Amino acid sequence: MRIGIVGAGAVGCYYGARLAQAGCDVAFLLRSDWEEVSCRGLRIEEGAKEVIHLHPVQVFRRTEELGPCDLIIIALKATARDALRTLLPPLLGPRTALLALQNGLGNEEWLAEEFPDRPILGGIVFACLTRIAPGRVRNTGFGRVELGEYSGAAAGLLRDIGSLFERAGVPCAIVENLAAARWRKLAWNIPFNGVSVAAGGCDVEEILRDSELRKLVVGLMEEVADIADKCGLPLPKDWIGRMLAETARMGPYRPSTLLDFLAGRPIEVEAIWGEPLRRGLAAAAQTPRLQTLYALLRFLDRNPAKREMRSRATPW
Amino acid sequence: MRIGIVGAGAVGCYYGARLAQAGCDVAFLLRSDWEEVSCRGLRIEEGAKEVIHLHPVQVFRRTEELGPCDLIIIALKATARDALRTLLPPLLGPRTALLALQNGLGNEEWLAEEFPDRPILGGIVFACLTRIAPGRVRNTGFGRVELGEYSGAAAGLLRDIGSLFERAGVPCAIVENLAAARWRKLAWNIPFNGVSVAAGGCDVEEILRDSELRKLVVGLMEEVADIADKCGLPLPKDWIGRMLAETARMGPYRPSTLLDFLAGRPIEVEAIWGEPLRRGLAAAAQTPRLQTLYALLRFLDRNPAKREMRSRATPW
Repeated sequence: MRIGIVGAGAVGCYYGARLAQAGCDVAFLLRSDWEEVSCRGLRIEEGAKEVIHLHPVQVFRRTEELGPCDLIIIALKATARDALRTLLPPLLGPRTALLALQNGLGNEEWLAEEFPDRPILGGIVFACLTRIAPGRVRNTGFGRVELGEYSGAAAGLLRDIGSLFERAGVPCAIVENLAAARWRKLAWNIPFNGVSVAAGGCDVEEILRDSELRKLVVGLMEEVADIADKCGLPLPKDWIGRMLAETARMGPYRPSTLLDFLAGRPIEVEAIWGEPLRRGLAAAAQTPRLQTLYALLRFLDRNPAKREMRSRATPW
Repeated sequence: MRIGIVGAGAVGCYYGARLAQAGCDVAFLLRSDWEEVSCRGLRIEEGAKEVIHLHPVQVFRRTEELGPCDLIIIALKATARDALRTLLPPLLGPRTALLALQNGLGNEEWLAEEFPDRPILGGIVFACLTRIAPGRVRNTGFGRVELGEYSGAAAGLLRDIGSLFERAGVPCAIVENLAAARWRKLAWNIPFNGVSVAAGGCDVEEILRDSELRKLVVGLMEEVADIADKCGLPLPKDWIGRMLAETARMGPYRPSTLLDFLAGRPIEVEAIWGEPLRRGLAAAAQTPRLQTLYALLRFLDRNPAKREMRSRATPW
């Protein structure tokens, strides 16, 4: 099974390297990191210890060179979605499956609309991954993946992919209900990714240590639980407690949205906050905290000058 | 009537200069602007036009030199409250009244506790005042003041002070219920001062122009109206609409909290957001947006490094 990785940031590189290390035929589409990775390979650290040094690596700068795959793992940010319209066609063989290893809502829907009749799968990552340098990814906590079908997958396809992940050392669960799994992850992304940016740039340890930010996180999680419930996709009973406990073990982890924000890149405002908010409103859920966070993040994202304004003292 | 101005920022200088210009005996306590004002006087602009140039001005660097007054107008930020313990005693004569011309809740309560048996008054400013340079204050909209009694004022005192303001060209209303007037002003300060900082530094025009921030402002105003209502101090029926209409006429006004924040000064987190939130919770009001804003502003205020973090790209 030839696997193509599109969007080789922290998530794409980490899982692609694990699969390649386990013997899978994995090809990476790379842009800025192409030279580094083709010369010196791909390095994966768990904690501060290098556990994989993949070299040589199948790296390509254009999907035309990469060619048809059996499975495409899409680990691009939702904000870069439009690029897939031109990136994906050269990768498509007669039975190529698309796996959206992304955060937020709407990714599989978008793929299904743009690439109808393709098997569309979704994957949810629970890991603290950071690209610490070109070609170097560090995992500082967890690593498990949940995989589910969105539409059109042949019997056994998900199980086969799941086995590849497991053989690559990635704890992997096949979920019956992908939509419900997306909401479980949103119960983490909405509060932690959002507050880390809105509070001026803080890691999850700082958030949990501040009594009012912690209250805000719990309030946001309760709103997400309520929306999920009203959408017929209830979270597990003890989910909020479990997420808080797992987060407490992450140390000073900076969510990817904060890294994007600090680097001046667009943030996934609509996928992570906007779309869940709209579904909540449609389901008549109470969503005031989510609405507040969405309004602030949306404005910050649309007005790049505001990212820096805080540090400038320019009265009138 | 000798009037002392303590806290000669935009508000203190503006009203002090108007009263002095109208012939009142007004003395200013100044720190950083002392030299400029004693050499070149105090200038007030309405719009971009200079309407007052007060020179010479009674300016003092220490309250010991300023001496006893009949009325002390306190226009310090609530965050600098503790300084009043040592600043005020030299200004107190046998019947000196204290007028808190400040934002937020708790100012009169604090004065009454620290200086019992004094007449305590409160004043609420509806004006777009900015200190544009040492000794120069610009008003870009409105100017009216509401005055009310908190405790212990002799009959006629409020009316006498109100007449001084009116003679100085300041539209002035005496309010029966000072606490209710404070909530009317909070219905503006809570959303606009708060969002201007939390959204990364924006003026009121930018807030109203952004559809989601505007929704957030209205949602916050509705929460404030609900708290005020449950505290037995209901806002006038059309208040939210009036505040939005007045704000639309302010142009690109930056609330004072934003100027403080950008200049690296503490912001009035507890007086404007914390105390109203606590009263709302005590009255069993729904306050999720206020809680969210309070948590974010409190964290930003307590962690000065976060003010600038947004502009730094420092992954891991």
